Amino acid sequence: MKTQYYTASSLDGFIATDDHSIDWLFPLADINQSSYPQFIEQIGAIAMGLGTYEWLLRNADAVMAEMGSPWPYAQPVWVFSHRTLPAIAGADIHYVQGDVRELHAQMCSAAAGKNIWIAGGGELAVQFYDAGLLDEMIIQIGSVTLGSGRPVFPRKVLSPAFKLRSAQHMGEGMVELRYDVESL
Amino acid sequence: MKTQYYTASSLDGFIATDDHSIDWLFPLADINQSSYPQFIEQIGAIAMGLGTYEWLLRNADAVMAEMGSPWPYAQPVWVFSHRTLPAIAGADIHYVQGDVRELHAQMCSAAAGKNIWIAGGGELAVQFYDAGLLDEMIIQIGSVTLGSGRPVFPRKVLSPAFKLRSAQHMGEGMVELRYDVESL
Repeated sequence: MKTQYYTASSLDGFIATDDHSIDWLFPLADINQSSYPQFIEQIGAIAMGLGTYEWLLRNADAVMAEMGSPWPYAQPVWVFSHRTLPAIAGADIHYVQGDVRELHAQMCSAAAGKNIWIAGGGELAVQFYDAGLLDEMIIQIGSVTLGSGRPVFPRKVLSPAFKLRSAQHMGEGMVELRYDVESL
Repeated sequence: MKTQYYTASSLDGFIATDDHSIDWLFPLADINQSSYPQFIEQIGAIAMGLGTYEWLLRNADAVMAEMGSPWPYAQPVWVFSHRTLPAIAGADIHYVQGDVRELHAQMCSAAAGKNIWIAGGGELAVQFYDAGLLDEMIIQIGSVTLGSGRPVFPRKVLSPAFKLRSAQHMGEGMVELRYDVESL
């Protein structure tokens, strides 16, 4: 099983606007034509930051249009948050805070051999990286720039560098880059 | 002839550190194994910002080690600057300021049918883009993050999006993305 940071980024390194919107992404690719259906099938537990989760809550209509459901995850989701938010029908949500190592152990247990998805934001991916728990990054780079926003990975990582395993051209709107992550 | 922004960027969208260093890039790929030799052969004139130029001046030793010469450009170079800097032996430098449209016309004339290279920084590439003069972006994305630095393209461009023409996996350290640029 792997712990994977799977996300889309603009060419200038932002995964969302300053207010956490990922609207910019939808015109660039059809999620059903992407690696997402295969990816999500192998996922047993999901981690997300509060910003990502709140965006999903606020944009249920857009998520419905894109994903076919306002809460498209069958898997249990760990929301890293100091607050508890309204429940979503059908969602298996754990509000957690604290050491990512302990929470990762809980997630591994729940995932039962499947992979763990760090859904975002970048700060959460960095927390897992810093704890030596991130195995892979799958970054879809859209053919746009945002100019500002939420950074894809707000940390310097020069050595060891990430290891690019593949670059998949997905049409003029996107390329998917897969990196192996070596811990410090 | 085309006007091309050819540069390397970190995965998080920075082409250089805050002090304009591109040292991070050298361990990731061998420039002679890259598209650079073929690219530079087709270039007739070069535009660069003051930050890029000053970095070259300050780091003649590193440039020598990487490129085989402290001033590796046979082509005339337009340095966009409000100041004049020390001359470099063997370099054909024009210090210019003002409207990029007029300067682009001068560069086209000097390039005599060859391409024009916007060597950086990102702010200069944006100036050419905003003037409707940028035809192509060739961005080599290194398998590292810088966390902060000089942005690859400091502007929002959502529509028309750039058009990804190819994604060339250049080993685990780098991927080269080629985009056609459509003007607003």
